[in-house]
Amino acid sequence: MEHWGQLAKFGTQNKGGTTRLAYTNADKEARAYLSQIMKEAGLQVHVDAAGNLVGRMSGMNDDLAPVVTGSHIDTVPEGGRFDGVVGVLSAIEVVQSLNANHIRTRHPIEVIVFEDEERGHIGSRAISSGLSPDDLKLVVLSGKTVADGISFLGGDVSKIAQARRNPKSIAAYVELHIEQGGVLEKDKKDIGIVQGFVGVHRWNVTFIGLSNHAGTTPMNLRQDALLAAAEFITEVHRITVSTPGHQVATVGKLEIGPDAPNVIPGVAHLTLEARDLDAKKIEDMGKKFEAAANKTGKDTHTTASISRTYNTLPVLADPKIMSIIADSAKERHYTQMQLPSGAAHDAQEMAAIGPVGMIFIPSKGGISHSPDEYSSDIEIERGANVLLRTLMKLDKK
Amino acid sequence: MEHWGQLAKFGTQNKGGTTRLAYTNADKEARAYLSQIMKEAGLQVHVDAAGNLVGRMSGMNDDLAPVVTGSHIDTVPEGGRFDGVVGVLSAIEVVQSLNANHIRTRHPIEVIVFEDEERGHIGSRAISSGLSPDDLKLVVLSGKTVADGISFLGGDVSKIAQARRNPKSIAAYVELHIEQGGVLEKDKKDIGIVQGFVGVHRWNVTFIGLSNHAGTTPMNLRQDALLAAAEFITEVHRITVSTPGHQVATVGKLEIGPDAPNVIPGVAHLTLEARDLDAKKIEDMGKKFEAAANKTGKDTHTTASISRTYNTLPVLADPKIMSIIADSAKERHYTQMQLPSGAAHDAQEMAAIGPVGMIFIPSKGGISHSPDEYSSDIEIERGANVLLRTLMKLDKK
Repeated sequence: MEHWGQLAKFGTQNKGGTTRLAYTNADKEARAYLSQIMKEAGLQVHVDAAGNLVGRMSGMNDDLAPVVTGSHIDTVPEGGRFDGVVGVLSAIEVVQSLNANHIRTRHPIEVIVFEDEERGHIGSRAISSGLSPDDLKLVVLSGKTVADGISFLGGDVSKIAQARRNPKSIAAYVELHIEQGGVLEKDKKDIGIVQGFVGVHRWNVTFIGLSNHAGTTPMNLRQDALLAAAEFITEVHRITVSTPGHQVATVGKLEIGPDAPNVIPGVAHLTLEARDLDAKKIEDMGKKFEAAANKTGKDTHTTASISRTYNTLPVLADPKIMSIIADSAKERHYTQMQLPSGAAHDAQEMAAIGPVGMIFIPSKGGISHSPDEYSSDIEIERGANVLLRTLMKLDKK
Repeated sequence: MEHWGQLAKFGTQNKGGTTRLAYTNADKEARAYLSQIMKEAGLQVHVDAAGNLVGRMSGMNDDLAPVVTGSHIDTVPEGGRFDGVVGVLSAIEVVQSLNANHIRTRHPIEVIVFEDEERGHIGSRAISSGLSPDDLKLVVLSGKTVADGISFLGGDVSKIAQARRNPKSIAAYVELHIEQGGVLEKDKKDIGIVQGFVGVHRWNVTFIGLSNHAGTTPMNLRQDALLAAAEFITEVHRITVSTPGHQVATVGKLEIGPDAPNVIPGVAHLTLEARDLDAKKIEDMGKKFEAAANKTGKDTHTTASISRTYNTLPVLADPKIMSIIADSAKERHYTQMQLPSGAAHDAQEMAAIGPVGMIFIPSKGGISHSPDEYSSDIEIERGANVLLRTLMKLDKK
């Protein structure tokens, strides 16, 4: 918690939150601080070619693939102090505890502070699957390109391929993170065992009707694009909740035109996304959404168009690691439950090079990416304890 | 049609439309042109204290209250060439025809070119019910205050009260206007007999939920303000179309926050308006809308608030004038129908000082307030013929 208090000071502070965008001075200074406490914890520290801060502790057999843990410390704008940070500091704490208790692991242990998680898992992708030239050209919130940001943090873009690791090159990757949802809090569970990372599909949906006078156009002659959007949104909700499961769908963005009180809207643009652990379920939902958009268009005399803009496949956690996390929680008498991760994390990238697991602790009110983000000291402690036990058990395998 | 072509040149021309905002040079120059053709038609012309252009032709008995007709020539931004103009030019045409045929009326006939109709019937309100000090301070689209605009057009704000006329001081007011809706076109009728001017009620409606992560928040823990708005909008539509009648209701404006694809909307603000000729029907709809907002709030775990922001009472056309319009159309073998005016017009203001009637002609595609506004020459001619006969019949009463 002392480290946590210190780390919170790097960045712009606001109502209990900290904004520390990737590739800013605050990010760089926070990493210098972490490098120091990682060394104090007994890690050998270096910055890899992709700008990730990597700490390594030798094992009894350094030929074995490393057991890896970590997370990130960059935030969104107006972010909180727990997202990512809890995993990084707990990982360092685990190493410190091992050393304080003179426990020598079989495998090398690695703690990775990934760079720029929030903009698209830049650091973990560099390690697991490699970055494309387009990734490197991307201009992120700090105003820098990814390439410039990596150099700024001490990486070497000319050798970026060296940061990439081979499939099966790690024994396991385990990450502790706040849930960023309200499930553990609502179900009163101490520990969440992540089943996997949901796939995400996104669509742009447009209804084109006819903008017209709100007084002179009878109801039966209207082509109201907002009514079409409203019927579609309610239907998306009905489709999503009408089958059992954890699937979610969200219309988060909606824009209408002309957008005046006395004019019938002639156009409505909206975004739709669906997430689930089961790729086929998302596909099936997508088909129903597409049919619903077209039916709504017909019903409201508007023209519907729906196009897929983005999709990622679900990534599953390793069942053996899930069971080790469960055992670890049980030994400490913590209550636990399995749940999907609706948010994306570095862990799902790391799954490309080895088995992964993820431990969630409760987020107050399910809030994240906000200064109101909060997990209590005891909740964090429970998470760190489960992380410690999980890593030790994995090391013994 | 020659006058029509000339008048269209005063103002900014765009794709078949003309923008001629009230109190601009274009407005002033157009009025000077109208003043000239009104004189040529046999009218004595003056500008009243409120800036209205008034043409008067003596009757056989000038002690009788005048039979009045007219409309306006100011447009909305990016406006059309028919809204208002058709009524003004037809009124002048009627006087010209009377004089060309040496027909002397019993009553004096007045043609009024009201000033600033589009911003809230400024000129017709000055005549019928008076302007308030706040009305005069209003800054309109030209950038001028109403007071400055009236002076600009040759009115005298210091004597504005003299523009106001007493109740029962006119024998009748009849206005010809494009329908600004698609009812006549759809029902293939030449002439619309306006039953009255609908009352308008407006509400602001807000749903407050909780903005949250679109991936990590299960469907059953959501407080989605956009889902609430969508359910409300569909329910407003259901309420409006579920009883017979001409009532309309429109959600024209909707704003959500934070408005991002991967964030559940936490807030939705929308405007709702309802219009009908029957004040009680609007009241009843309002009660149902308020109940629907509150029920939707409960159903979606959001907090609903709904508040009335504006309301006007319906104004009915005079049944005798309606019947005279019907007879006039019938004599010319024009097809006809009765309908409410969903739009507001100078005629509804004039109802404060005498019986009013209004004649509609078809608008292509129901379009108005747009360069695409269109009524054909023959449609306008039919309207002018009905206006002529109606005024002559009224004069004989």
